[in-house]
Amino acid sequence: MSHIYDRVALIGLGLIASSMFWAIKRTGLAGEVTGYARSEATRDTARRIGLCDRVCDSALEAVEGADLVVLCVPVGAMGAVAQDIAPALKPGATVTDVGSVKRHVIQAVSPHIPEGVHFIPAHPLAGTEHSGPESGFAELFDNRWCLLVPVEGSDSDAIARLRALWEGMGSNVDEIDADHHDLVLAVTSHAPHLIAYTMVGVADDLRRVTDTEVIKYSAAGFRDFTRIAASDPTMWRDVFLSNKDATLEILGRFTEELFALQRAIRTGDGEHLFDYFTRTRAIRRGIIDAGQDTDAPDFGRGKANP
Amino acid sequence: MSHIYDRVALIGLGLIASSMFWAIKRTGLAGEVTGYARSEATRDTARRIGLCDRVCDSALEAVEGADLVVLCVPVGAMGAVAQDIAPALKPGATVTDVGSVKRHVIQAVSPHIPEGVHFIPAHPLAGTEHSGPESGFAELFDNRWCLLVPVEGSDSDAIARLRALWEGMGSNVDEIDADHHDLVLAVTSHAPHLIAYTMVGVADDLRRVTDTEVIKYSAAGFRDFTRIAASDPTMWRDVFLSNKDATLEILGRFTEELFALQRAIRTGDGEHLFDYFTRTRAIRRGIIDAGQDTDAPDFGRGKANP
Repeated sequence: MSHIYDRVALIGLGLIASSMFWAIKRTGLAGEVTGYARSEATRDTARRIGLCDRVCDSALEAVEGADLVVLCVPVGAMGAVAQDIAPALKPGATVTDVGSVKRHVIQAVSPHIPEGVHFIPAHPLAGTEHSGPESGFAELFDNRWCLLVPVEGSDSDAIARLRALWEGMGSNVDEIDADHHDLVLAVTSHAPHLIAYTMVGVADDLRRVTDTEVIKYSAAGFRDFTRIAASDPTMWRDVFLSNKDATLEILGRFTEELFALQRAIRTGDGEHLFDYFTRTRAIRRGIIDAGQDTDAPDFGRGKANP
Repeated sequence: MSHIYDRVALIGLGLIASSMFWAIKRTGLAGEVTGYARSEATRDTARRIGLCDRVCDSALEAVEGADLVVLCVPVGAMGAVAQDIAPALKPGATVTDVGSVKRHVIQAVSPHIPEGVHFIPAHPLAGTEHSGPESGFAELFDNRWCLLVPVEGSDSDAIARLRALWEGMGSNVDEIDADHHDLVLAVTSHAPHLIAYTMVGVADDLRRVTDTEVIKYSAAGFRDFTRIAASDPTMWRDVFLSNKDATLEILGRFTEELFALQRAIRTGDGEHLFDYFTRTRAIRRGIIDAGQDTDAPDFGRGKANP
């Protein structure tokens, strides 16, 4: 495949950036890929494992001459990084990001984008509970969605080129409005993560049930919560703080529904419970039909017994 | 391996019973395995796929002459089934069950157990989101825990024999007190299931976010909730109604913690969030070290792209 960009700069070298590097290299989507991470230890690791064609010791050096700059840092750090790199951005270049929240990132980054540089926010809906430069792999984005969130005045050619890159890395690409993105993700990602973190914290706190018991007997459902609740703390702190309104709205609705189900349990209303549990099965069926999961009957067993 | 029981009767032919049949046959743990299901369609399916050596048209016929009778029906049906089969139970036989709640099952079943018959409640901590006679497989219990919950006067030889059966089917076996079982399972299974059902219901209800969006973008965390929330509605209705106190206690603690985290989000207390999210990582590490899950970095991707 011919290059989509001559030079791509990855700022921040965690799970997403490292997966992007391997996915770009898989089919040669870019000429040179430079990288920068704030921590020297991360840069050393990147050099050791061959992550990026060139690892730079400053963000300015990494973005110099790049046609595409990808901000892969926690949402709360996007604004400061954009300010740092602004002086070195090449005219005509595109700046994008991979943050899980879009309205906040747009507000934080846009003011620093120079005239003549395109800013096209994006969000690949892919990840694992692991983090860091060694956690990436080329297949992370295959058959996953990447959402592009063009802002006012985004150049259509620049959008098409970024779309081609994500498609080249294996993603399906959709365009979506920033506020709607933040609401949808509050439902499919942010609220579920907070709920999983909460449940794992409760289990850890309960003195009458030991951690050993929780761990031994986790296969009964809890295990999936711990997987979600093992995700990167810095990233998630920033997500909740920067998508505050939508997350709190969904959590409010969640609490309301949970109270209704608790009341059904307390009053012995089996019909209410049965109907509710039957309805939720349909959504699962939809996810399998859409190819976003398989019907494999295992609750992770295939992985537990490889 | 020589037989542990000459004849085993499985009452109810869903996921657990069908997996028990295949696991028993894998290494010849019993001579003959009979089966009974209330629904004629289920009995027909069982005969068609060779599930059980002999499928009977009544529970009485199935248990006649059995050394071990396993009640594999929803928790709410245990008492009535025990009453039905009582007249046909062989002196010296053992009755056990596989219900997810133990105190309620003991109260419902014990009064019907005739003098000279042993009753040893049990709970294999294994399952998938699928149900029915065709969902079983021999490996379901491998390296999973089965909890035996002996009641007052349970015969130690009968306990040892049931333990041998579960170990033969691949399980690790622990003994536990009924009330403690119900509390531990409220934490590791019952509360997480209700929470997952609730979150999936909220997503389905939210008119500003379409089901299509929820389904397409589910890979970001929600997908694991839908898997849990696809479990059998009858079984789970009965679990919540029969483990009411422990479930409501854990849900109360969960709500309290969730409110504290919501307040941290509202007030922008990033330190509280970061510390909480860091602490929950340790439990995940424990589960992986205990062999109850692997560290495979995939959020189910291996299954989505087989």
